[in-house]
Amino acid sequence: MARRRKSDCPIHFALRIFGDAWSLLVIRDLMFKERGSYTDFLRAEEGIATNVLAERLARLEGQGIIVKGAGRYRLTRKGIDLVPVVLEIIAWSARYDPDTAAPRAFVRRLRGDKQGLTAEIRARLEEERRRRS
Amino acid sequence: MARRRKSDCPIHFALRIFGDAWSLLVIRDLMFKERGSYTDFLRAEEGIATNVLAERLARLEGQGIIVKGAGRYRLTRKGIDLVPVVLEIIAWSARYDPDTAAPRAFVRRLRGDKQGLTAEIRARLEEERRRRS
Repeated sequence: MARRRKSDCPIHFALRIFGDAWSLLVIRDLMFKERGSYTDFLRAEEGIATNVLAERLARLEGQGIIVKGAGRYRLTRKGIDLVPVVLEIIAWSARYDPDTAAPRAFVRRLRGDKQGLTAEIRARLEEERRRRS
Repeated sequence: MARRRKSDCPIHFALRIFGDAWSLLVIRDLMFKERGSYTDFLRAEEGIATNVLAERLARLEGQGIIVKGAGRYRLTRKGIDLVPVVLEIIAWSARYDPDTAAPRAFVRRLRGDKQGLTAEIRARLEEERRRRS
């Protein structure tokens, strides 16, 4: 099968998978907001359109980032491995956005104990993943 | 002035700034590829269109992520602070992309000594920033 990739750059690889705002917001909801159903995603404050949401969910599922079961989506191991990416984005935004909604205690923990916080979030998501699979 | 933001979520904040593939590829070029001119960006293997490139550069400059001087763009402090985000994306892609172009030695270092590698890249970029400002 001919490969049609424009580049094997690791940033490009990642961006083709989750490099649009809506995909990463879906991943965020699954990591932090205990939202997991189609309706939950639609209710997110940013206001995603149903057709866009359906397309993003299908893409993320096709890429093995999320799986669906019993009407709810959850992160796979590959999706859970995005926790460090998302945490670094939160840290950067908390630093530069004067109106950030990132909880202060969370940001303090992220600055002082990134490894511990990462491990804790991963453990919670792994637990959810096992419980539902 | 009325605020018109849909959400103060830190992920959403970041995505409005660099949450599209081209913006992050420009940031990548400035971090790792010693590309800094308009023509350099155009030559990147992913093939960005000139109008898209011009729009992204203007946006990144408006957000204070990059500045232009002497015909070259460079990362500001705010842009350099994205190094950890980009490194986590590289680590994730190196893990899941069998065809990754990420150099092995780089990935090994990233896994074994993320802090040291981050500090080294930051120092190089800070040095460039100072030299050109």
